[in-house]
Amino acid sequence: MKSHLFIVIALAAGVLAGCKEGSNEAVPAAMDVIMTRTSIRSFNGEAVPREQLETILKAGMAAPSAMNVQPWRFVVLTDKDRIAELFGGGFRPEAYTSAGAIIIVCGQTKYMRKPWGQPDAPEEPAENIFWYEDCSAAAENILLAAHALGLGAVWTAGYPAMERVAPLAEALGIPEDVTPLCIIPIGVPAENPAPKDKWNPDNIHWDKW
Amino acid sequence: MKSHLFIVIALAAGVLAGCKEGSNEAVPAAMDVIMTRTSIRSFNGEAVPREQLETILKAGMAAPSAMNVQPWRFVVLTDKDRIAELFGGGFRPEAYTSAGAIIIVCGQTKYMRKPWGQPDAPEEPAENIFWYEDCSAAAENILLAAHALGLGAVWTAGYPAMERVAPLAEALGIPEDVTPLCIIPIGVPAENPAPKDKWNPDNIHWDKW
Repeated sequence: MKSHLFIVIALAAGVLAGCKEGSNEAVPAAMDVIMTRTSIRSFNGEAVPREQLETILKAGMAAPSAMNVQPWRFVVLTDKDRIAELFGGGFRPEAYTSAGAIIIVCGQTKYMRKPWGQPDAPEEPAENIFWYEDCSAAAENILLAAHALGLGAVWTAGYPAMERVAPLAEALGIPEDVTPLCIIPIGVPAENPAPKDKWNPDNIHWDKW
Repeated sequence: MKSHLFIVIALAAGVLAGCKEGSNEAVPAAMDVIMTRTSIRSFNGEAVPREQLETILKAGMAAPSAMNVQPWRFVVLTDKDRIAELFGGGFRPEAYTSAGAIIIVCGQTKYMRKPWGQPDAPEEPAENIFWYEDCSAAAENILLAAHALGLGAVWTAGYPAMERVAPLAEALGIPEDVTPLCIIPIGVPAENPAPKDKWNPDNIHWDKW
């Protein structure tokens, strides 16, 4: 009996050790996800289930946006032939062709608003000068959500590198007032790089520059 | 002895129930943090401990950046008088003056590199066309980390609204090749708004626009 008791105590201790510390488990887990996310550029080719893609896109749409305009639009590529056609001949093609899906985060560069100080005037299109910041926040949420789900992803350049943006927008039939910000391949990682330690206290200026 | 054994088993079961389900606790917790973050513009005035600010800044510096340039720089204001002086007379002053600290996320707009295709040439300064995207990803990590720690925060506009950026940069002595991207008040929330549900399937274009 004593040995049984000992085993049960040992089990309980093991379970305790497996639990996150503190009263709010979300703290270490979310910080873990932020701190261990790193760029994955090689995938095993498996498709990403639509449900997971929608979870990831929900995270993207949970980002903040200036005046809550929500300028993000997403083109999601899951067709392998289409992906190979679009990215197979470019820079680091395997990062795209081995992915299970590609999310192209785009931004609507105009929005409808009433002219300033004219509450009775009709709405008219205005430039959204913050679209690329809002869409960048959405892109970061997408990377974090993919990592939280055990998938890998990498932010690859779009805007303002127009030599990459323009042909892609044309090939996909993206309207003129929407601009691809970045191209994010997502999939089951086929590599396991250590996250970079980018902590640098010299980047912080306390109370003045 | 049997009753002791029973108590230990009950304790072990209780501990197990307190753990998140599934093999990866980070998934629900990190998604929770992403989905429940919302803008907080009213704080109770309490200071944010330096240790928490450093945790939040670590999250910022864990963002991805184009070519791993890490262009982010941070001015952290904790002095209440200085905060009142800088923001007390502007738009929505209470969002700043009630905060425990303010993080101004800035970007170094140039970086040193060798001219393309000249590996033996000396490095020279080049424009970093991606600085505001990298710094936006850092800003989103900062908002998420603050929320994960139980604090509130809000992204308020800087770049490219130069009428806000230029006087702030001058007042803080920020160098010419560094630009304030956004101003993030952080503190203990004095309001508890429901997170917005921004899920909109119309924002998603599957396999083509």
